[in-house]
Amino acid sequence: MHNSQHVQHITDLLTAWANAVRAKDVSKIMALYHNDIVAFDAIAQLQFKGKANYREHWQRCMEFCSGESMFEIHQLQVRADQQLAFSHSLNHCGGTNDKGEMQRCWMRATQCWQQGNDGWKIVHEHYSMPFDMESGAILTNLAP
Amino acid sequence: MHNSQHVQHITDLLTAWANAVRAKDVSKIMALYHNDIVAFDAIAQLQFKGKANYREHWQRCMEFCSGESMFEIHQLQVRADQQLAFSHSLNHCGGTNDKGEMQRCWMRATQCWQQGNDGWKIVHEHYSMPFDMESGAILTNLAP
Repeated sequence: MHNSQHVQHITDLLTAWANAVRAKDVSKIMALYHNDIVAFDAIAQLQFKGKANYREHWQRCMEFCSGESMFEIHQLQVRADQQLAFSHSLNHCGGTNDKGEMQRCWMRATQCWQQGNDGWKIVHEHYSMPFDMESGAILTNLAP
Repeated sequence: MHNSQHVQHITDLLTAWANAVRAKDVSKIMALYHNDIVAFDAIAQLQFKGKANYREHWQRCMEFCSGESMFEIHQLQVRADQQLAFSHSLNHCGGTNDKGEMQRCWMRATQCWQQGNDGWKIVHEHYSMPFDMESGAILTNLAP
């Protein structure tokens, strides 16, 4: 495979993954992660080490966001060669609050990939929102 | 070069880079970045695109943090092949406030690297702190 084919393949994997996030299908979400993933998620902890640990976190997040959800990948850039790849994007995320109103924000996503016998897997993921240096509050109103 | 030599080389580059951050030497800090860098920094904006744009941000940050500073890279993991690499770490950062007190926190760092004619350069960087889902405030007291 040429590197451009790996880029296309990873792009397709991320599209399927975003569909799984929208559908809140934790098993499909987890299928992309390597057993030894080190994840820096946007909330709660500095890091999540290992697939079982990260799965529990995803499960809690999906239970917390019970209503309709949106999850769109924008400005995706992927670089890949035969063994390693990385991707980054700005993701437009949203969920309905307890009044049934859709609340949206933009998050930054980075994924680092490794190819093994079972295909491309994410070995490291980093999700975040930037914060305001003065107040220490996350900046929820930024848009690209 | 074997991949393990690339891993060692990138580890050495990050050590020199951390020294430059502690010394607030913006030119040395910038030497590691690719011209087309896309940076997701912890504060202020969703992203910084291009080296000139990111340099201005670094300059502002260094002016903001005027006192003595600390910057230590912990739990560094690097994966590299001949063309691409990625690294991630938990960084212990600190600076003196206006009362001369050292204030410390832990940040998550991810760097994505590409090898070109001028050596390994960071084409994507992601820095952040996690936040509390209920309050929207960053979690400054977490430690690994």
